[in-house]
Amino acid sequence: MNSITYQEAAAFLREHDRYLILTHKRPDGDTVGCAAGLCAGLRALGKQAHVCPGTGATHLFAPYLEGYLAPEGYVPDTVVSVDIAARGLFTQEGETWLERGVDLAIDHHPSQEFFAGVTCLDAGRGACGELIYDILAQLGPVTAAMAVPLYVAVSTDTGCFQYSNTTATTHRIAAALMETGIDTFALNKRHFRTKSWARLQVERLLVERMHRYEDGKIAVAPISLSLMDEAGATEEDMEDIAAFLGQIEGVETSITIREKAEGGCKLSVRTSGGLNATRVCALLGGGGHAAAAGCSVQGSLAQAEEAILAAVRQVEAAHG
Amino acid sequence: MNSITYQEAAAFLREHDRYLILTHKRPDGDTVGCAAGLCAGLRALGKQAHVCPGTGATHLFAPYLEGYLAPEGYVPDTVVSVDIAARGLFTQEGETWLERGVDLAIDHHPSQEFFAGVTCLDAGRGACGELIYDILAQLGPVTAAMAVPLYVAVSTDTGCFQYSNTTATTHRIAAALMETGIDTFALNKRHFRTKSWARLQVERLLVERMHRYEDGKIAVAPISLSLMDEAGATEEDMEDIAAFLGQIEGVETSITIREKAEGGCKLSVRTSGGLNATRVCALLGGGGHAAAAGCSVQGSLAQAEEAILAAVRQVEAAHG
Repeated sequence: MNSITYQEAAAFLREHDRYLILTHKRPDGDTVGCAAGLCAGLRALGKQAHVCPGTGATHLFAPYLEGYLAPEGYVPDTVVSVDIAARGLFTQEGETWLERGVDLAIDHHPSQEFFAGVTCLDAGRGACGELIYDILAQLGPVTAAMAVPLYVAVSTDTGCFQYSNTTATTHRIAAALMETGIDTFALNKRHFRTKSWARLQVERLLVERMHRYEDGKIAVAPISLSLMDEAGATEEDMEDIAAFLGQIEGVETSITIREKAEGGCKLSVRTSGGLNATRVCALLGGGGHAAAAGCSVQGSLAQAEEAILAAVRQVEAAHG
Repeated sequence: MNSITYQEAAAFLREHDRYLILTHKRPDGDTVGCAAGLCAGLRALGKQAHVCPGTGATHLFAPYLEGYLAPEGYVPDTVVSVDIAARGLFTQEGETWLERGVDLAIDHHPSQEFFAGVTCLDAGRGACGELIYDILAQLGPVTAAMAVPLYVAVSTDTGCFQYSNTTATTHRIAAALMETGIDTFALNKRHFRTKSWARLQVERLLVERMHRYEDGKIAVAPISLSLMDEAGATEEDMEDIAAFLGQIEGVETSITIREKAEGGCKLSVRTSGGLNATRVCALLGGGGHAAAAGCSVQGSLAQAEEAILAAVRQVEAAHG
């Protein structure tokens, strides 16, 4: 694990050329924003730089990669991964380059596997985009072309400065990005103040059909395939749906149960009141973090609900 | 209009004593947060300071004023208003002090009426709380007791850094406030990630019953008294409900129509697609800003909807 500082990462980027930048699979705003921002920054240095195609970015994030995707047959000298913590998180196209060898990994996940030649890791950053900003700022003036995707990276990974990973540094970097003259209002509207019609229908149906227990401290939303149909919803409309329940006043444990097309159910448990979500999900063979965990249950939505409620009660009884 | 800088305002506060701080009526997070933060800051200087009672703060903001409200019979030497733009915006209790004379007004509204002996106005600030922060920072270390209400002021007035009034300075001040060690995650959860059950019911019913026109570019939500009953909603649950429609993908003009208990309807028009909301509402005797305006219409919800749609079309026809 050859760790380097962000100043050393800047020196590395200045010394090399012909870059290919890799994003993680099921890409979010952070990995896409880091890739686009870094690519713009390298080009401003006069380097050749492209982002590896096949990112799988949704319509929400794909536009930030326009003009940056590598043309067919592009052969890089230097491969850089951004926001990729583990070997298992490379895209299909990226896996080829993982085999060839990643030269530099830039990341903020404590679970970083150190798969690269050198790794610039800062697990104290809310978003990997913060680290990319600090690296680019070492290399020259950060322009609006870099600042737009970096703002997307930083703001989306911190829930627009609302999540607990937000730090004073996050805000300071947001300030610096704003000073390049970018229209953060439009970016915020796009990423935080826009809901698809189908998403609104999903939320309406959840409110109509969710179950509440223990004076509303537990909220359970069974999400059947037919509910998805009724709402006209696709996977893109379901992002972070577990958080929708968690925002209800008085709810401490929110549980979404998704019916799977291939049978069985996938459950997501979020807690804010002290109950350990991992302990609950472990009883059903799952895992995760103390405040957010998941598991799968064979059987119907009703059976899954019964199983998870029993698990919640067992953990409550054991740990008070 | 005796304008002073924030450095001069700091000097003013150091020189005087026995403060009474006034908030504006229908108080929001900014005026309450400014009052609590300033009161804490003045007390840290060894001054006597209280906030004028009768603020009318809702359960969301009232807790920040705990321990700061003036006891009965308190006679101040120095009266300071925070975030109050105009004479008409004083609370009932505050009006007495307006008559006696306000010594210092601290504000960020361009519509400031300069009713005070001296006025510290910076209309470039997203929140008045930013200005209070800069003043307090001149007077000594900003503590967590000051930072909590100031963070509430700054974050709520800028829609948690999402509105167009957010600047680089807003973020820099948020960073400084975070560095006092306050739990902004809990504050963000309270103010931006919590919805009452009744509010969720209102939103569910709006999605179910709203009308969409012009391929979804116009969304109209009639809100009857019976809908409010059905949702179990009070006025507190209706805050910023117009924004709920405005977030729907593709919606450029969102219109909420509230049925009034005393008869007639109150309309709110929000636009993001270039249509001038003030022109629309002016046709029905109302007014406001280009992107947000309001008016009242006599008659039923259906009549009000017909009238406002006709007004929208008339403005569209005249201005393209």
